[in-house]
Amino acid sequence: MLSTTPRTMLGRSKERGSTDRNDLYEILDTGLICHLGVVVNGHPMVVPTGYGRVGETLYLHGSTGATTLRAAGDGEVCVTVTHLDGIVLARSVFHHSVNYRSAVIYGRPRLVTDPEERLTGLRALTEQLAPGQWDYARPPSRKELAATAVLALSLEEASVKIRRGAPVDEEEDHALPVWAGVLPLVTSWGEPEPDPLLPEGIDAPVHILHRE
Amino acid sequence: MLSTTPRTMLGRSKERGSTDRNDLYEILDTGLICHLGVVVNGHPMVVPTGYGRVGETLYLHGSTGATTLRAAGDGEVCVTVTHLDGIVLARSVFHHSVNYRSAVIYGRPRLVTDPEERLTGLRALTEQLAPGQWDYARPPSRKELAATAVLALSLEEASVKIRRGAPVDEEEDHALPVWAGVLPLVTSWGEPEPDPLLPEGIDAPVHILHRE
Repeated sequence: MLSTTPRTMLGRSKERGSTDRNDLYEILDTGLICHLGVVVNGHPMVVPTGYGRVGETLYLHGSTGATTLRAAGDGEVCVTVTHLDGIVLARSVFHHSVNYRSAVIYGRPRLVTDPEERLTGLRALTEQLAPGQWDYARPPSRKELAATAVLALSLEEASVKIRRGAPVDEEEDHALPVWAGVLPLVTSWGEPEPDPLLPEGIDAPVHILHRE
Repeated sequence: MLSTTPRTMLGRSKERGSTDRNDLYEILDTGLICHLGVVVNGHPMVVPTGYGRVGETLYLHGSTGATTLRAAGDGEVCVTVTHLDGIVLARSVFHHSVNYRSAVIYGRPRLVTDPEERLTGLRALTEQLAPGQWDYARPPSRKELAATAVLALSLEEASVKIRRGAPVDEEEDHALPVWAGVLPLVTSWGEPEPDPLLPEGIDAPVHILHRE
């Protein structure tokens, strides 16, 4: 079950809320980036960034000097992952909508200092964006590790919203001669583009070529 | 030129910053949703939502009762629009990255009360998600308009970040037998899915069928 703290209680569109933790995991595990919200000098700041999940923990990382990372390590954050699945075209302008799945996580991240957990977090972050690459590419050096801050955010306080399916129009609009339905948004991988500096004879490995 | 207030001065990765306003417009005009950040009780809150641009103004909307909309009408917001274009696969784990284009806008939105500007804003919001639909679907009724709050945010304080192209690896890693390059992420429209309640004989219009 997902938590129901005041922040994660859904105000609007309660029917779109999900309290199934598997929905939370699925949204996080199939996402690529999140939008990280922090408060800097009393003002909100939202940046796209990578993440990775291990069990009940979400890992974030960044340069040790980055403003948002420093703010995130210093107070409350909000992490939002959104999948946009389609545009909902209703008979009325008012009922236009989108089909989507989104997860919102609130909490106070913890700076990870344990060397082993830092590696666990960085592996999750890498594998989220590029599965198979942690074991394939060169591991981080001591210097690279020193330049990277890793934060851990508990998934304790999270909410999920999902909208699926056809438009919901007013009864009296059903007779209008207006097409209604969903225009799906499809995301797929293109052909891998080799680095121009790559020597001949190095082919893209299967985990890149045939990424799902 | 984009502004260079302390918030929009780029701390990290300055080479990824763009000060070309056309980049800002292009990122906004080709996006579908934004992530809206507000501060509620001192804590950040980030939600996906629609938007529309008219000149130097970004319009947001929502139910008059929504928490985030009330917070947005009451203080500073941050609106972020992100396009994820590909995964950058480097020879080292550390240099893995993403190709992306993102726009971040800061400001204090104004509640739009002028009836004509409210319609301008709602049209922009609808056309951003579903071009052609404002003139095709039933216009909003008086009651629907009364239930909808429209906010206007100036584009004055904005920053743009763009990363394109191949990975940037350490010189000494170029000899590694590791494939490097970019795996592009491609977004496209699927086949329109008619509402099961749609009577026979109503075909999807060209602006839906052949959306670019």
